Amino acid sequence: MSEQKKYVLPESEIPTSWYNIQADLPEPLPPVIHPGTLQPIGPDDLAPLFPMALIAQEVSQERYIDIPEPVLDIYRMWRPTPLIRATRLEKALGTPAHIYYKYEGTSPAGSHKPNTAVAQAFYNKAEGVNALTTETGAGQWGSALSMACNWFDIECEVYMVKISYQHKPYRRSLMQTFGASVTASPSDTTNAGRAILEQDADSPGSLGIAISEAVEVAATSGGAKKYSLGSVLNHVMLHQTVVGEEVVKQMEMADEYPDVMIGCVGGGSNFAGFVLPFVRENLVNGKNTRFVAVEPTATPSLTKGQYVYDFGDTGQMTPLIKMYTLGHSFIPAPIHAGGLRYHGMAPIVCHLYDLGLIEAVAVPQNPVFEAAVLFAQAEGIIPAPETAHAVRTAIDEALLCKESGEEKVIVFNLSGHGHFDMASYDAYFTGTLPDYEYPEDEVERALAGLPQIA
Amino acid sequence: MSEQKKYVLPESEIPTSWYNIQADLPEPLPPVIHPGTLQPIGPDDLAPLFPMALIAQEVSQERYIDIPEPVLDIYRMWRPTPLIRATRLEKALGTPAHIYYKYEGTSPAGSHKPNTAVAQAFYNKAEGVNALTTETGAGQWGSALSMACNWFDIECEVYMVKISYQHKPYRRSLMQTFGASVTASPSDTTNAGRAILEQDADSPGSLGIAISEAVEVAATSGGAKKYSLGSVLNHVMLHQTVVGEEVVKQMEMADEYPDVMIGCVGGGSNFAGFVLPFVRENLVNGKNTRFVAVEPTATPSLTKGQYVYDFGDTGQMTPLIKMYTLGHSFIPAPIHAGGLRYHGMAPIVCHLYDLGLIEAVAVPQNPVFEAAVLFAQAEGIIPAPETAHAVRTAIDEALLCKESGEEKVIVFNLSGHGHFDMASYDAYFTGTLPDYEYPEDEVERALAGLPQIA
Repeated sequence: MSEQKKYVLPESEIPTSWYNIQADLPEPLPPVIHPGTLQPIGPDDLAPLFPMALIAQEVSQERYIDIPEPVLDIYRMWRPTPLIRATRLEKALGTPAHIYYKYEGTSPAGSHKPNTAVAQAFYNKAEGVNALTTETGAGQWGSALSMACNWFDIECEVYMVKISYQHKPYRRSLMQTFGASVTASPSDTTNAGRAILEQDADSPGSLGIAISEAVEVAATSGGAKKYSLGSVLNHVMLHQTVVGEEVVKQMEMADEYPDVMIGCVGGGSNFAGFVLPFVRENLVNGKNTRFVAVEPTATPSLTKGQYVYDFGDTGQMTPLIKMYTLGHSFIPAPIHAGGLRYHGMAPIVCHLYDLGLIEAVAVPQNPVFEAAVLFAQAEGIIPAPETAHAVRTAIDEALLCKESGEEKVIVFNLSGHGHFDMASYDAYFTGTLPDYEYPEDEVERALAGLPQIA
Repeated sequence: MSEQKKYVLPESEIPTSWYNIQADLPEPLPPVIHPGTLQPIGPDDLAPLFPMALIAQEVSQERYIDIPEPVLDIYRMWRPTPLIRATRLEKALGTPAHIYYKYEGTSPAGSHKPNTAVAQAFYNKAEGVNALTTETGAGQWGSALSMACNWFDIECEVYMVKISYQHKPYRRSLMQTFGASVTASPSDTTNAGRAILEQDADSPGSLGIAISEAVEVAATSGGAKKYSLGSVLNHVMLHQTVVGEEVVKQMEMADEYPDVMIGCVGGGSNFAGFVLPFVRENLVNGKNTRFVAVEPTATPSLTKGQYVYDFGDTGQMTPLIKMYTLGHSFIPAPIHAGGLRYHGMAPIVCHLYDLGLIEAVAVPQNPVFEAAVLFAQAEGIIPAPETAHAVRTAIDEALLCKESGEEKVIVFNLSGHGHFDMASYDAYFTGTLPDYEYPEDEVERALAGLPQIA
């Protein structure tokens, strides 16, 4: 009768420290390499782009890092976020599985992204930074950083991937409401952008290109501006662990433990933040949860890429990072999940995948939207197209349980809502969405051009 | 340091009964009149449109009415909703006032509307109804009823005011995701719609016209379809009291009591649901809270209308209701707050206003958006254009406190988010929003045509 639906922690239970998986890795992360010297980079190499506090977090081996009080003070505006038992979805599927979702779409910007945006804005402001540049795909990250910068009185310049800029005009409006300036990328305002436009005036853009533009603007600002990245880097994964740490407590409230945890991956931050505290439980406390990263067949970095050193951006402005990559010159097909259109993947996620500690799967666009609509009809919440990848795989796992009769506990990260993505739902309903397959030739070309580093 | 931001009740504290103000009114509500006989209507007159359970609630004098368990079961998906202390807004304004907002935008449909949509769908299904018709302005109500009908396996036909249909295409997509059919109103599918189109082929529509269309479809369906209204009626106000009952408990948690409570009014339901339990405290327990209903200058029913008998719809298909009205043939200016474009007002709200138990104020469009942007920048949440009317007046009250130095407790209902309304923010930013004033001549014309009933 009065079945519990939501597991809501009191405000006092917001985690007060982030969890740093680097302290517990069975092997350390491969170093980040300077493309000129081919030697591991040091803090000075990153200082033009990031404040020292974030550079320190990037390489920290401390297991727990305190969340600063001004960051916690803002987290309290929407955290802790709910963990919800998807009883109606379970019934709609007829599965014996217990399905739970962590709902990060309750943040004001609509996704998990503010967890790191607020932290990054805080550390930048603390070191006197008054302007930040960044890129955004679907606009989830751009709106989160715009919001955070507004709270810390920092100017924010966003390079938004052109295809998403066109697909999602209201994400741009949202960023402008928070006071940010937004430029469609590739643009003619940077060398990196102009170089792409010369090759292809109609380029839909990509996260890799937008990163180049934002990095260039910061790097050439004479110290006036720094750069902020919404995923991929270790400090971003760190900040997102506030999500998983809450889920640890919420699963205790529910008196269950995850058999499988699922998140979508583009750069990897919502997945990592969600699962890392449970990876710790596997590594340190003998637990045995499976972790599944879900990517689009259009950008299958984990499932089809190579684990090699590559640039983080298309314009080759970043250091070389060892990651599963499709090649930095790879331009992903214009899927609606703009936040997943990235050629690489977070080094931490790649390392865990390489060590066999997590799994990965790639899914095409139409089955993803089919799952999103099924979820929306059952649970009322419209998932972002990125998030819908996790929904697809959660439903697939639940359907396997239906076949096997297993009462598995399936927990996924509903990382963001799709309120600004309804045009993609319209496209799905009219049957006009292509199911992009793994673009073998294009990936082969892009990978062939990579620097050879042992 | 660790200042409390959110007052979140446990799931077990969701109110289990709605509060019926009719039990405590100092004078009873004026009866609803049959336009043919000019006699008070009885249950049989309403039976073609509503299930008996809702007709009974419409006239009930019971102080508390139990919320059915299947309705509570769905409420638990998002209720209780948070009460949030707007500390950042207070700082931005430099006011000594304590500002709180009840955030109903956390429901899956994005507003308070599901509180009654779920209840209405439940009672209809319980009496064997398998199809409902309704109207919607901004689309908040239409999406809520679409969602609720989907959960109870009821077909849902929505007539959406044409200007909102054009302003807010993604609200339509949302309703379609929940399986509803959506028609722009006035349409050529009904006599009422065709009559309007003959007079004005470019009619932007209004809630009054869309109600006529939806009522006509139900009334002429031979019993196959019933009709559902998202505001105005007593049973809708009743269902919305779950909001105010939560606020009663949350103010206790905060150890404060409201000096003034503020809500926007179109039909009156979010305002009524929010304040009625506190009106009870004024009437029964000697409290002294002020209640301010905020309407647009474009449709100032309370502040400029007459308290007379009028039709609830433009096509004169409903009974005659005593309310503050601008006249049923009044076509409101195309403001972006589509949910407030109604010529009349809930009889309960009108009665309280007539008795001097609540206040009302009208505000123009641009100052409303100015307040919305100020609020969004401070608190991160984008208010719906309707809701932004309440934000404007809450800020005005807080600024008065700044002048007087008073530490008043101001509580307003943030009834919905504006994620589907970003086009209106764009229009505000580009300076193209007109500030419609009170349309004196037009109201005079529309009021002159009313039936004369003592």
